[in-house]
Amino acid sequence: MTAWRMLGAILAIALAATSPAAAESPRGVMRGTGDLGIVIERASGSVAVVETTTATRLYTVDGLGDLSHASAVFSRDGRHAYVFGRDGALSKVDLLRGTVARRLVQAGNSIGGAISQDGRIVAVANYDPGGVRLFDAETLESVGEIVAAGADGDRSKVVGLVDAPDHKLVFALYDAGEIWVADITEPAIPTVIRHRDIGRLPYDGILTPDGRHYVAGLFGEDGVALLDLWRPADGVRRILDGYGRGQEPLPVYKMPHLEGWASSGGLGFIPAVGRHEVLVVSLTGWTELGRIPLLGQPVFAVARPDGRQVWVNFAHPHNDAVQVIDVPTRSVVATLRPGRAVLHIEFTPRGEQAWLSVRDADRVDVYDTRRLQRIAEIPAQKPSGIFFTARAARIGY
Amino acid sequence: MTAWRMLGAILAIALAATSPAAAESPRGVMRGTGDLGIVIERASGSVAVVETTTATRLYTVDGLGDLSHASAVFSRDGRHAYVFGRDGALSKVDLLRGTVARRLVQAGNSIGGAISQDGRIVAVANYDPGGVRLFDAETLESVGEIVAAGADGDRSKVVGLVDAPDHKLVFALYDAGEIWVADITEPAIPTVIRHRDIGRLPYDGILTPDGRHYVAGLFGEDGVALLDLWRPADGVRRILDGYGRGQEPLPVYKMPHLEGWASSGGLGFIPAVGRHEVLVVSLTGWTELGRIPLLGQPVFAVARPDGRQVWVNFAHPHNDAVQVIDVPTRSVVATLRPGRAVLHIEFTPRGEQAWLSVRDADRVDVYDTRRLQRIAEIPAQKPSGIFFTARAARIGY
Repeated sequence: MTAWRMLGAILAIALAATSPAAAESPRGVMRGTGDLGIVIERASGSVAVVETTTATRLYTVDGLGDLSHASAVFSRDGRHAYVFGRDGALSKVDLLRGTVARRLVQAGNSIGGAISQDGRIVAVANYDPGGVRLFDAETLESVGEIVAAGADGDRSKVVGLVDAPDHKLVFALYDAGEIWVADITEPAIPTVIRHRDIGRLPYDGILTPDGRHYVAGLFGEDGVALLDLWRPADGVRRILDGYGRGQEPLPVYKMPHLEGWASSGGLGFIPAVGRHEVLVVSLTGWTELGRIPLLGQPVFAVARPDGRQVWVNFAHPHNDAVQVIDVPTRSVVATLRPGRAVLHIEFTPRGEQAWLSVRDADRVDVYDTRRLQRIAEIPAQKPSGIFFTARAARIGY
Repeated sequence: MTAWRMLGAILAIALAATSPAAAESPRGVMRGTGDLGIVIERASGSVAVVETTTATRLYTVDGLGDLSHASAVFSRDGRHAYVFGRDGALSKVDLLRGTVARRLVQAGNSIGGAISQDGRIVAVANYDPGGVRLFDAETLESVGEIVAAGADGDRSKVVGLVDAPDHKLVFALYDAGEIWVADITEPAIPTVIRHRDIGRLPYDGILTPDGRHYVAGLFGEDGVALLDLWRPADGVRRILDGYGRGQEPLPVYKMPHLEGWASSGGLGFIPAVGRHEVLVVSLTGWTELGRIPLLGQPVFAVARPDGRQVWVNFAHPHNDAVQVIDVPTRSVVATLRPGRAVLHIEFTPRGEQAWLSVRDADRVDVYDTRRLQRIAEIPAQKPSGIFFTARAARIGY
């Protein structure tokens, strides 16, 4: 063994001793699930199960496939996470046992999912072959499908899939330029209301926290499509024309997710596309009220649960920073520098902590949101999305 | 044994066989806690532990003392309920084991409590000897006290105690006519901001769901006190003068709880005092926008979590009814008749079910909120308050 190899072996042992696995908590323990969550470890196809009461990584669940762009929803009892992989896989992770309870590859390429209001049906939005597939949340058996064909009869990619009140799903058809509202009370025979000609190439969609308004971003146009689910007969209207383009459009380094829209006290905080700004929008009139200058192109703008702060992360080359907006004054009050590639922000349910994925540091940082100070750090391999079980109790995730 | 006695014995056996205890679920099972809750059984000093996924009573936890007017909050992991009895007792109930984990009598007479934003401190509002006592949520050891003395130095009863963002508690001093905002970051040395002369005899208080506005009802005056926690320097102002009295005041059969105020899309739905109406109030301007006529004196007005419906129960002699208000049209769309003495309404976190306590029928009814139909019933002895663990993730409970 050469000296270099020996050094390598010693380093490997030292790393193993300090790796997350070395300090794992016992699995299968009886405990509450309200303070649990998962962190997506993109490169290794695993998730870390974490708990927020003591900011601890509990254990690693492996074997989840391609987790680039992965997201998750939770069972209504908070015990299981349903992880949607980019490779079309749907994995049901048992947070108490730290195991993959069930798993199937349900499509060739998928882009997120939702869980029905009653928690009985998990829905997956697919790129290939398009459409929405419905699964029994307990068994993952297929219980239905919504074939998403546009007016021309061609199948369409589905994006922006969310659950809505009264056992509905809402989603957008990327290729067809439509928004559909499906009633899945009987998943084998879903009934669908189609809104056509909503604009070209909707690429993502979100629901406001009250479950009333669905908003779809349009890749093919400079504006946003809005549907009021309380007034479906009014149809879809266009809002925020010009929101993505200024007089001198900038190159877009990363398209902001619409789930990165923050909502606070009747205001929306919306990452501008390609500009170093967040838009402030009235959620009643859906008009722009102003803009807040930032240090880079925003990706996610996430409101603290009480709406008093909005935390923003950025596209390259400013993705080492997080800025905190004070909502009452609509101004930036802090610029944090957690490290390179801050990919996601998740607040604890009552907002006392913010958890940040710092990908290139292989670390999740936990901040006290009042003092704006880091209070803990948790090892994670190339962490991206962070999802806490409190999402199970929220509408539109 | 006489025939009557024999009949009595047979009936007792028959009742025991059909009583909730006879069909109890096994305790101490590993499971998620996101779909659990408790039902207060006032007459027997017990709580029923329930789960909402299959609408099932799991087991009974006895020995909780005087539960008239009892309320509860939950640990941040959802495993434990802290039950506040009227007799000054604080009981920590383990929802997974179905046992009383800890219990103490901490005052002579108390009126509810709260849990701090970080879940570490349980606070109890006391009538006798007044003030707020603070306990470690894990051990129930005393960790601090806020002595509530008014400007005259006399101790005051404390009411309307709620948690607020940034590790604060907010409450009202009944005798002193004050609202206090306490920072309990260091519970042994809480710091307090006092708002004096807020009006006579505040009898209850609530926080808006975003944690921004604290509202206290005034027994001694015909109006309501409002504090904007984002602008504490503005102090407390009076709103809704005349809300409790019309030109011909009616006798008040039951004072509405302020926690019965519903909030939906920037609107508040507030039970009028003594009148057969709910007031519709703007939560931005805090002005009255209108009134909705009802069949009796409202007690609780509770919004479905998506805000599209408000459910209202009533004081005697109309307490057998529940009316459902459709928020878009601001009109009553259904009058349900569950049975005599409907005391409380609790929605599942995403709103697909409403649970109603029907005291005189010894039953909790579960309604599908879309079809407005009863879908299940659960036995409970003289049920009053219903509390689900999702409250652990909400602000101001």
